[in-house]
Amino acid sequence: MGRYVIGVDLGGTNVTVLLLDSRGGICSVIKDKTSAREGPTVVLGQITSLVLALVDQADLALSQVRGMGIGLPGVVASATGMALFLPNLPGWHDIPVAKYFKESLGLEVYCENDARMAAWGEKLMGAGQGFADLVCLTLGTGIGSGVFLQGKLWRGHLGSAGEIGHLTIEKDGPVCTCGNRGCLEMYASGRGIARRTREALVKNESSLLNQLVGGKIEEVSAATVHEAALAGDQLALCLLQETAEYLGLALANLANILNPEVLVLGGGVTSGMGEMLLSPVRKVVNERAMSLNSQVVIKQAQLGERAGAIGAAHLARLRFLEGQDISALYW
Amino acid sequence: MGRYVIGVDLGGTNVTVLLLDSRGGICSVIKDKTSAREGPTVVLGQITSLVLALVDQADLALSQVRGMGIGLPGVVASATGMALFLPNLPGWHDIPVAKYFKESLGLEVYCENDARMAAWGEKLMGAGQGFADLVCLTLGTGIGSGVFLQGKLWRGHLGSAGEIGHLTIEKDGPVCTCGNRGCLEMYASGRGIARRTREALVKNESSLLNQLVGGKIEEVSAATVHEAALAGDQLALCLLQETAEYLGLALANLANILNPEVLVLGGGVTSGMGEMLLSPVRKVVNERAMSLNSQVVIKQAQLGERAGAIGAAHLARLRFLEGQDISALYW
Repeated sequence: MGRYVIGVDLGGTNVTVLLLDSRGGICSVIKDKTSAREGPTVVLGQITSLVLALVDQADLALSQVRGMGIGLPGVVASATGMALFLPNLPGWHDIPVAKYFKESLGLEVYCENDARMAAWGEKLMGAGQGFADLVCLTLGTGIGSGVFLQGKLWRGHLGSAGEIGHLTIEKDGPVCTCGNRGCLEMYASGRGIARRTREALVKNESSLLNQLVGGKIEEVSAATVHEAALAGDQLALCLLQETAEYLGLALANLANILNPEVLVLGGGVTSGMGEMLLSPVRKVVNERAMSLNSQVVIKQAQLGERAGAIGAAHLARLRFLEGQDISALYW
Repeated sequence: MGRYVIGVDLGGTNVTVLLLDSRGGICSVIKDKTSAREGPTVVLGQITSLVLALVDQADLALSQVRGMGIGLPGVVASATGMALFLPNLPGWHDIPVAKYFKESLGLEVYCENDARMAAWGEKLMGAGQGFADLVCLTLGTGIGSGVFLQGKLWRGHLGSAGEIGHLTIEKDGPVCTCGNRGCLEMYASGRGIARRTREALVKNESSLLNQLVGGKIEEVSAATVHEAALAGDQLALCLLQETAEYLGLALANLANILNPEVLVLGGGVTSGMGEMLLSPVRKVVNERAMSLNSQVVIKQAQLGERAGAIGAAHLARLRFLEGQDISALYW
């Protein structure tokens, strides 16, 4: 009889469900659009259906699955398996996620913040393997991270450490969803890059960026900026350099506080832009961070958009197949 | 026969030498102007003389002293007892400090960065007692810190963690001694406050600040700003508020990364301005940091200007009187 686990990465746009075998091999993956607007009950039902479809697709019975890990985009109480508040998913306040799947699928569930799950993915199976002191960042719609110190994830006094996306990088910048002004997320996340691009396009109608979206400025994204930059468009190159300067400033601050060995950058923005973003980011960090701190190695993540689901599945494997105490992996 | 240790805090301006008994009681203290310009050999000789005077003053023989801790203002290699580079003391490159005192006084010596020694002072004997996850900052001529995680001082991958003074808080701010632009130290250290005050006074000659220094703008200091602010001077109040905003921004970033329980603020700037600075700083941190992170408690340090010498003496006590392995106090 097989021993399997499930990893789920729930996002505001997509939900990914992944089946892992006991040796850590990925059996199959399903990705779907999140039924976000329908509220938590529908989304939880959607995940249940996806899990059943994935198990069926692999010719398994649900009884062969031992447990599930799930990454949720917001504030999560891992100990109780609750989603406390997911800002990008309407209606998600104090939702008992673990309890739900225990009832709907009969599965034990480990819940964690999605950026931390992606960080676990890269730490255990990706670019962070073999390092003890590192920060794994996800630059997606928003920006999150997992801070690892001496190999264990640092949660902090109240569990809220690693909020890199909300470092202030412009004292009087625009107001962020968190209430602060000038957060990194307002500049270097997918949403932040799109915002800055829209603002710049109003004054630069001749940019290739405008052509790429057929004049529909509201449709520009980090991907459009990357495409136009590759084609040599001046405005796009300028926006990309500016993104690197904001991100580099925040990473230099992180390096000056923690002096980590490695920073792993992942998420859609990083995988889209690759070295075109990382190379100027390294230059900025080298210029801004104190001598020894500037030696931090900045690496691209290796698991792409599956990092979160892979991290979730591996924590589920460690807990439900290998019987490890997950709390021992955390500070 | 008594058992004593010495604590030394070497600064660019003053040097403090303190005698501690085996129960942690302070027997006596000497403070002197540092003979900084004369170079390392003279300064080391000066410390030797001060130690001998202090021991003599306490009616002790040097043989009753078991060891010494010394805080040095710059980059220190504790394992080898070397001062690698002290930016504010001319000629201090690769100076074998521990070896020198072993020869001149026959004493075993533990060397550490001065801001970390002050942090140890507050952690062991001051405002940081009883907390596990905290950062103790010194706002003096420059800005330094000691970051404690789970009760141990976090050094980072190459030993250079905790450089809070060099967090960038203004992207295009003035160039700092470290080579970066817009470091916190350029705004909220004693030197930074004086610089901003001088710049503001050029345009505001009617300020009380001008009168307090008899028109000698080059003589303004953080203390002048505090005095004028107490008297209700608008420019001084404005400079103080601005200092709180810069400091609060950096502390909110620190809180968002580490989610510590407590921040202890010490050094001459803090002890001079007290609640007049801390109160608006708390407000800024509360506004800027993420919800749980904004709950960090911001406390004033308790040991005043002796924090560094007290920290140095207590580490010497633990190591040379109690035989503890000091490396077990660090990550």
